[in-house]
Amino acid sequence: MSYQLWYWPSIPGRGEFVRLFMEASGLEYRDIAREQDADALVEDMHARTGFRPFAPPYLVDEDVTIGQTALILLYLSDKEGLGSGDLATDLQLLQLQLDITDLVKEVHDTHHPIASGRYYADQMDAAYERAENFREDRLPKFLIHFDNALATNGGPFMLGEQFTHVDTSLFQVMEGLDYAFPNYMRTMQGSWPNLEALQASVPDIEGVAAYLASERRMEFNQDGIFRHYEELDEQ
Amino acid sequence: MSYQLWYWPSIPGRGEFVRLFMEASGLEYRDIAREQDADALVEDMHARTGFRPFAPPYLVDEDVTIGQTALILLYLSDKEGLGSGDLATDLQLLQLQLDITDLVKEVHDTHHPIASGRYYADQMDAAYERAENFREDRLPKFLIHFDNALATNGGPFMLGEQFTHVDTSLFQVMEGLDYAFPNYMRTMQGSWPNLEALQASVPDIEGVAAYLASERRMEFNQDGIFRHYEELDEQ
Repeated sequence: MSYQLWYWPSIPGRGEFVRLFMEASGLEYRDIAREQDADALVEDMHARTGFRPFAPPYLVDEDVTIGQTALILLYLSDKEGLGSGDLATDLQLLQLQLDITDLVKEVHDTHHPIASGRYYADQMDAAYERAENFREDRLPKFLIHFDNALATNGGPFMLGEQFTHVDTSLFQVMEGLDYAFPNYMRTMQGSWPNLEALQASVPDIEGVAAYLASERRMEFNQDGIFRHYEELDEQ
Repeated sequence: MSYQLWYWPSIPGRGEFVRLFMEASGLEYRDIAREQDADALVEDMHARTGFRPFAPPYLVDEDVTIGQTALILLYLSDKEGLGSGDLATDLQLLQLQLDITDLVKEVHDTHHPIASGRYYADQMDAAYERAENFREDRLPKFLIHFDNALATNGGPFMLGEQFTHVDTSLFQVMEGLDYAFPNYMRTMQGSWPNLEALQASVPDIEGVAAYLASERRMEFNQDGIFRHYEELDEQ
């Protein structure tokens, strides 16, 4: 039976980190809310009992339901034998994936620093300030961190030639940053050579190449986590 | 050999989630930066190579170094046989711990909505708005989520009578919320009966009772994640 992924159908968002890894790894899945709609997602999520997910994405594998992007990736990686084969290393890969989770939350908060449930237009002043701090302080800290980690095994991926869930996620982060902060990313080009090499290498993974060329791959858009607002990308 | 915990010595912060679980479980550890100082922590963290932690806390267990609070708790729980004994359940406990990570980040951002590296006084207006949204929208969502999860096995803990890392962390969350938002928490008293029962039960765990009575337990303070500012706690 194939995996069932549940995520908002209209944005790449956090669901895309799961999709990319499954596509790269050739795992079969159904993207249920895209077959149906957002209402079906809300209904399904609320009908679940016990230790249920706080928010999408979540993965259903027969009678196991798992929320939290990083945890879904850990689960798939473990179950399908797509990790490093070494426990300590797998833990460190999860650590890096959780660092990505933190960064993604900070990306979201550049345009929603006050309230995720309110419009961008209602929090633009705070967004301007937060985005400035993000570009000048937080983002380079994160990217240097990932760039250094990529040097550990010589690249292009975290473990060297073998890709893991961390690499497909970092690809999505770099693509998202190029979409949201094109001016900043152009100015900083060359600052994170290992990340740039990773970004160039992930599309060569067979499953990723096919995926990126398909209609399943969703474009970034202004409802997602990575959004482009010119005023948040000033230098 | 005992575990080495590295965390900022002057605040309970995220380190306290690790401490509480180790104390509850009777695990031996050294709290290195409290024996030494914050400079020693910064120096140690920067001297680490490979897939190093992005930020404290991190745990050193001989040649394994692990960052990210939730992951440290997973590691300890697995290694010491303190989980549920069932893989699917352990994953769901980690899922809940990651939900706690998300909540803790949102607590932090109530007083630092613009820039974690700048003073509260420089972002008070945004903080006022963000804290209002947090109290009215985000916090109840999280607490209802945890309260419902606690009903799964009849309480007082997530698995029933046996505590896990999720329970000690939720205790710390509730204590922190009482410190930071006393007015709000008093007004809402009774809204989350299962969480309140958990908060009352965790101090009865033998290791926790001894810990809370010791000098190792740090008070909440105005440099930490949970801070009390009257203006952020208005009704």
